[in-house]
Amino acid sequence: MIVKRKNSGIIIIGDEILSGKTQDKNSRFLSKELGKRGVDVLEISVIPDIEDEIIKKVKSFSSNYDYVFTTGGIGPTHDDITALSVSRAFKLKYEQNKEAKKILEKHYKKKELTKARQKMSFMPRGATLIYNPVSAAPGFIIKNVYVLPGVPMILKPMVLEYLTNYFTINILPQVRISTKLSEGIIGEFIGQIQKNNKQVTIGSYPYFKNDNFGVSLIMKSENRRILDQVSKKVYSYLKKKSGNPKYF
Amino acid sequence: MIVKRKNSGIIIIGDEILSGKTQDKNSRFLSKELGKRGVDVLEISVIPDIEDEIIKKVKSFSSNYDYVFTTGGIGPTHDDITALSVSRAFKLKYEQNKEAKKILEKHYKKKELTKARQKMSFMPRGATLIYNPVSAAPGFIIKNVYVLPGVPMILKPMVLEYLTNYFTINILPQVRISTKLSEGIIGEFIGQIQKNNKQVTIGSYPYFKNDNFGVSLIMKSENRRILDQVSKKVYSYLKKKSGNPKYF
Repeated sequence: MIVKRKNSGIIIIGDEILSGKTQDKNSRFLSKELGKRGVDVLEISVIPDIEDEIIKKVKSFSSNYDYVFTTGGIGPTHDDITALSVSRAFKLKYEQNKEAKKILEKHYKKKELTKARQKMSFMPRGATLIYNPVSAAPGFIIKNVYVLPGVPMILKPMVLEYLTNYFTINILPQVRISTKLSEGIIGEFIGQIQKNNKQVTIGSYPYFKNDNFGVSLIMKSENRRILDQVSKKVYSYLKKKSGNPKYF
Repeated sequence: MIVKRKNSGIIIIGDEILSGKTQDKNSRFLSKELGKRGVDVLEISVIPDIEDEIIKKVKSFSSNYDYVFTTGGIGPTHDDITALSVSRAFKLKYEQNKEAKKILEKHYKKKELTKARQKMSFMPRGATLIYNPVSAAPGFIIKNVYVLPGVPMILKPMVLEYLTNYFTINILPQVRISTKLSEGIIGEFIGQIQKNNKQVTIGSYPYFKNDNFGVSLIMKSENRRILDQVSKKVYSYLKKKSGNPKYF
């Protein structure tokens, strides 16, 4: 079967890229990962944090390309206006997403879930979440637009673990476990588990939560039985090490 | 006197950037250098080596922004179509520039000046050259569009030594000397000369020419007398060292 390649455009949103303060590395990462999965990037556009510019570019890219990827502008500050602008581009209601709200409530202590952070659960009505194993606040998909954060260490696992599902016919079963232990402590054991269980792929992503940090482990396999066995081994190990493991 | 800031757009031309093969570093470099000189970058666009795409983007950027900078696509190969496309965008004749022809004839031995290399002297009628101390083949300016190469080590000195002249009211007197000696040999002496002559700024750029290489030195100063003194010292030193110095 010959599968027709798809095309896409990337919109990098952020004054800090245009001023030269920050080197954009997300577009190259996305180009490579998408290319491997049959999606060619035909245009990359870097634009400022200005609502009208975002609306204009999202509308034109959304009608010109099969897929559109945006990075940046979905954090808690006043200049994070991507979710609002994308809602307006499609004339959709900008509202709090219930699932995103729950994710933030689970991640932040009550008094730490400030109004600014609550904003990170607002998005266009009908959006599908893209999960974030690093700092919880999700990205989202609306129509053919995939909205991602700007920080590369947050964007990368979101792309590798979730976004790519949408470009793969078989979505692999997965189990996700978080722990308060660092990669330096658990790395050797996890490496050994990976080595002995080639049918499971294990992704390891440091996260930060309030003032704490830890690791999110994402295990995937076509073989559900082996996936469960491996996940249980990992969970038991982390529990024994007082790593406060949690399925998430 | 308050000088009004100007705005600009950057067009990065090249399939190798869109595929993720190459990390674009030129746009950040340009953004920083332009920002320092009062020119804000409002949009960066990465597009493929496709004539219609280049024409469309050059036309829209040229009418939307005070200045436009393009990088890439001015080399000798078949996919280097920027100069032709820019000519067509402005409906100007695409022809051999006499000064550019002379520069290439000086740089290449006769039989090395292939048809492919000759192409690097073709550009829109009425273009002004932007000199290239590294590999000779010049960029050019036409209307408000500044056409630059894609290789960062060639682009950088072109921007720092020539392009920036166009954004400065007083163009500094300058003397340019090339030598076949390497930076490793002459670096200490040049460093000493720079240290003792703060009124002159000395830029040092390795060049490659056929199978040889050497260094292009560009000296600038508001003080013409001191500039000439320093240039003579540099020239004499290089001559004594059998460095085959040449004013260029």
